[in-house]
Amino acid sequence: MTLKLPLFSVNGVLGAAISPLDRGFAYGDGVFETCRIHRGKIPLWSFHLDRLLQGAMRLGIPVAIDLLEEYRDQLLIQGQAEIQNAGVLKIILTRGVGGRGYKMPDEVQPTYCLGLYSGADLHSKQYLEGVRLRVCNHRLARNSLLAGMKHLNRLEYILARNEWCDEVDEGLLLDTEGQVIEATVSNLFAVVDGCLITPDLTYAGVSGIMRRLIIEQLAPALKLQTRVEHIDLNIVSAADELFLCNSVFGVWPVKALLLESPLNLALGPVTLAVQVSLERYLQP
Amino acid sequence: MTLKLPLFSVNGVLGAAISPLDRGFAYGDGVFETCRIHRGKIPLWSFHLDRLLQGAMRLGIPVAIDLLEEYRDQLLIQGQAEIQNAGVLKIILTRGVGGRGYKMPDEVQPTYCLGLYSGADLHSKQYLEGVRLRVCNHRLARNSLLAGMKHLNRLEYILARNEWCDEVDEGLLLDTEGQVIEATVSNLFAVVDGCLITPDLTYAGVSGIMRRLIIEQLAPALKLQTRVEHIDLNIVSAADELFLCNSVFGVWPVKALLLESPLNLALGPVTLAVQVSLERYLQP
Repeated sequence: MTLKLPLFSVNGVLGAAISPLDRGFAYGDGVFETCRIHRGKIPLWSFHLDRLLQGAMRLGIPVAIDLLEEYRDQLLIQGQAEIQNAGVLKIILTRGVGGRGYKMPDEVQPTYCLGLYSGADLHSKQYLEGVRLRVCNHRLARNSLLAGMKHLNRLEYILARNEWCDEVDEGLLLDTEGQVIEATVSNLFAVVDGCLITPDLTYAGVSGIMRRLIIEQLAPALKLQTRVEHIDLNIVSAADELFLCNSVFGVWPVKALLLESPLNLALGPVTLAVQVSLERYLQP
Repeated sequence: MTLKLPLFSVNGVLGAAISPLDRGFAYGDGVFETCRIHRGKIPLWSFHLDRLLQGAMRLGIPVAIDLLEEYRDQLLIQGQAEIQNAGVLKIILTRGVGGRGYKMPDEVQPTYCLGLYSGADLHSKQYLEGVRLRVCNHRLARNSLLAGMKHLNRLEYILARNEWCDEVDEGLLLDTEGQVIEATVSNLFAVVDGCLITPDLTYAGVSGIMRRLIIEQLAPALKLQTRVEHIDLNIVSAADELFLCNSVFGVWPVKALLLESPLNLALGPVTLAVQVSLERYLQP
């Protein structure tokens, strides 16, 4: 039997739909994860689960880990023929069905909506040759209660992403104070004097899984120092190398930063080392 | 036949559900309206439609007004026995189904999700006796691209609303710069020297329908001057009267502002005049 992707399950029911009363639909009241499936497994599952739990805790949404993992396994088995090499698992966790009004229901029955998508090989053109990065006009609002969380309120990112068509690969996002935060679907690293610098996400941005893997495992294994700092566009444009990362596409070198005077960057040795380190991590 | 409320239609199909691929569910990519139904009609429909269209235009979502009004009438007819005196129509308009990623689909088929709820009489306890208003700790982020719009990204309001239980009626929201913006589900008016002052919503907040009716019609009919200004908590706490408004509950006098030293306010003549003016408007 050939299944058509994307394939969804809602609270364990394959092909089910979402109630119009779901607070995820009504208010974006929830969090999500997008996980790379590699040879049928999710190598960074523990990181995804950790972030999901942290976000849910900050929003006050209870999570039954055993149920979530049961739904995950069910979907992976259903779709295993379609995702043999690569796939993407998307998890949307919401506060479930509720009445009218922002007040949280007294008893929350969360919605676990899982989706299985086809995936692409890690060695994309962007991965191998680098990407063109523009600077978005839209500035992210500062909100420390939501910063770092991969929540369902994504209008800012939609507006930013739709500033350009397909001539550019990614868009860099600054916040309203002019600090560099991230790109629309990825985090940024700047290589400065052999050190990896990535923006501080205290006030805005999404704390990425690949960013965490690089800081906690890949960089230390390579004996590279990392720093999490508030940085502006001057620091970014003076960097030796730049790269973007997320858990689905891995690590993309930036080959051009499209400022007023576009800046061309060479695909540098540090970015390449991080890519090699990631590949080793993914393919034991 | 007795129908159970809330009753929903999705793209005109009664009792239908939402696709897990709907961008309203995935990203909060849409806008909504909550309209008071009064004797089977929606007296402020043209205002609601106007705001919905403006929000949709700002987000780039096309709207077929004839379809929307057809779905509205269908639902009102289905539920007419249940909402004879009062009801609430909620409209959620999203960018419809899409793939993974923030990029807008090339061809958008919006989702029109309409819900019919039972409603309460205008003359609630709060309407007649006034409400207790606290000041929320959560500060609204500033984002002029989204300010004023009744969009589906409502996590900030959920966090603010859940700072208190039922001992208080509403919560006042300031922005990150300390400016007073609105309350969690309503707009604020301060009566100062016989003039109605309401916060400027250039950087944050929802531009309310009842606020607009008061500024454009009720206040002029009462020969009251209105001013839209950036105001802080000092101005609010020094006001002669305060009231909250939205299109469902109408006008609520504030009888207590719960600052460090709680401030008791008398139910004043200007607020009462606005209430009377609203009732005349609603019941021709």
